[in-house]
Amino acid sequence: MKTLYNFSAGPSVLPKEVLLDAQKNLVDYEGCGMSVMEMSHRAKEFDDIIKATEKKFHEILGIPDNYKVLFLQGGATQQFAMVPMNLLAKKGKADYILTGNFASAAYKEAQLFGKKISVAGSTKEETFKRIPDQNELKLDPDADYVHICENNTIIGSKWKYIPNTGSVPLVSDMSSCILSEPIDVTKYGLIYAGAQKNIAPAGLTVVIIRKDLIYAPLPGTPTMLNYGVMAENDSMKNTPPCWAIYICKLVLEYLLGIGGLKEMKKRNEEKAKILYDYLDSTDFYKTHVAPKDRSMMNVTFRTSSEQLDDKFASESKAAGMSNLKGHRDVGGMRASIYNAMPKEGLVYLVDFMKKFEKENR
Amino acid sequence: MKTLYNFSAGPSVLPKEVLLDAQKNLVDYEGCGMSVMEMSHRAKEFDDIIKATEKKFHEILGIPDNYKVLFLQGGATQQFAMVPMNLLAKKGKADYILTGNFASAAYKEAQLFGKKISVAGSTKEETFKRIPDQNELKLDPDADYVHICENNTIIGSKWKYIPNTGSVPLVSDMSSCILSEPIDVTKYGLIYAGAQKNIAPAGLTVVIIRKDLIYAPLPGTPTMLNYGVMAENDSMKNTPPCWAIYICKLVLEYLLGIGGLKEMKKRNEEKAKILYDYLDSTDFYKTHVAPKDRSMMNVTFRTSSEQLDDKFASESKAAGMSNLKGHRDVGGMRASIYNAMPKEGLVYLVDFMKKFEKENR
Repeated sequence: MKTLYNFSAGPSVLPKEVLLDAQKNLVDYEGCGMSVMEMSHRAKEFDDIIKATEKKFHEILGIPDNYKVLFLQGGATQQFAMVPMNLLAKKGKADYILTGNFASAAYKEAQLFGKKISVAGSTKEETFKRIPDQNELKLDPDADYVHICENNTIIGSKWKYIPNTGSVPLVSDMSSCILSEPIDVTKYGLIYAGAQKNIAPAGLTVVIIRKDLIYAPLPGTPTMLNYGVMAENDSMKNTPPCWAIYICKLVLEYLLGIGGLKEMKKRNEEKAKILYDYLDSTDFYKTHVAPKDRSMMNVTFRTSSEQLDDKFASESKAAGMSNLKGHRDVGGMRASIYNAMPKEGLVYLVDFMKKFEKENR
Repeated sequence: MKTLYNFSAGPSVLPKEVLLDAQKNLVDYEGCGMSVMEMSHRAKEFDDIIKATEKKFHEILGIPDNYKVLFLQGGATQQFAMVPMNLLAKKGKADYILTGNFASAAYKEAQLFGKKISVAGSTKEETFKRIPDQNELKLDPDADYVHICENNTIIGSKWKYIPNTGSVPLVSDMSSCILSEPIDVTKYGLIYAGAQKNIAPAGLTVVIIRKDLIYAPLPGTPTMLNYGVMAENDSMKNTPPCWAIYICKLVLEYLLGIGGLKEMKKRNEEKAKILYDYLDSTDFYKTHVAPKDRSMMNVTFRTSSEQLDDKFASESKAAGMSNLKGHRDVGGMRASIYNAMPKEGLVYLVDFMKKFEKENR
């Protein structure tokens, strides 16, 4: 069965307009005689692309001039190391708040580099079903930074408030929620995101760093993992992932074209509501995450048995919906409904879920 | 002026057949309803692609089963750190042979990690115009590895013999010569290459490692920079650069289709001969590299003055040839004539050079 709607958690669906534009220009980019994949990264043609991409990031997220946008590689997982290697050089202390698998992985990785990497809050004992409140956080005012994972892709939860960390910089992994709604960048010291959900295809990592947080990293930090080196070289210490940056530019243009992140948020809320409203109306499917902390990007649910979950996965696939099977660590189902998932995909999914409920209740 | 022939040192020209195939399948890969850029890396569709790519690498280079092919990110520059972080854990000693800018950069980076990083040979004082002979090398039989840069992209030289390093593993940066001719993989402990010359677009790094060289790395090595972790996870500890891997697969299929690397070598020799024969027939253009060590991939030359070099760069660009200006570190001109550069490009270039000589002699 051909995929009609792709609910993958990442890499994931891209706007059709972007794919068609990329296709048209793939062999000969805007009549220059070369594919973007063939361009020297030092040539004017590509320089125009990367500069425009950086500028559009500033525009769409309202990023002030005291922040630098970096185009890196290695995914969020590489940032789990780069953040501590670069930011722990002052005091060697950081606070991590554990709200899911990736937040926990980031915490574990940081222990390779810091003297005192602490858990400042965790809902692990409650199987990550909620985000901790501000008053539950035990923050060290002397830490180099506080780390959160803003949207928990696997469990399907999202921070709905920005924790107050005082003068300690807040570092946020926004891999699965960036560009889904407007944000106040000034509340963060550093934001990072693997591109393969809302930004671009896999192979690009975007880092938005407040410039005063660019300082000499820990000794033994590889050149390519040094934010300062990458900032000085405008992300081109060596050849950047040019194609993914180009697609990122097209995605940003698409988002600006529909009215920016305010409009995107409205659409995302509408889409998520279709699914959550149905989930709340039935006891056939169960949700895990506290309603106040539900993600607008990753919606998780399950039936009463693993057997039925497997049936759901295979029948939904046969109906043209890819990747609805939940993450191997938690089971159940997950519908990732990023920016480029059309509303029709949600209507189609809920129709299927109703039918499945009727047939299997 | 539209580019007719792209002489970029990387990213660089890709086979037209590959680009057309990628274009055709960009929006809907082989009728599956998704772009390769949208596929979950854990889904069957992409699993088929990455497994086929690994298999074809073994096939085209004759890689034995005791080697693992890894698909990584960060370019060769990240390998400058990964090689020592992973291989220096035994004795902390390595030998570097300096034959150009990138070999020197690799040597410098290794010093962040080793107790004794030595220069076992260098032609730096002769401005890298030749590759040292075996009898000039001062190799430490107790080193963890010996590092060479097999093709020096900037200066235009190439190792024409494989140095005998005894039982010490040889590590080779093959970024700008891999897939240009058959090689004997068994002579190497580790081969690495940024993809953006002969393999695929930028954003992918290929590492071919002998399995006994996969052991616990130095303490403080980030998870993503650990060969063992990437090998265990078949290059998918996290999301790999899927699109670049897919294009790599198409390039390998193209190369196997024309008859493999034996045929590719024949074509590359023919192409390089067109340019070198002309360069040897005139005193208007000067070459720098010793004829015995000339690269088949990057051909460097200059006129009698910087002013005339600049004129050459701008007039050749106006004639439809991109990126003939030499690297900023060495000046002059450089024609990068990778696998996908057609013979016609060389004929066109030499015709232009003859005309330019006539007009400016």
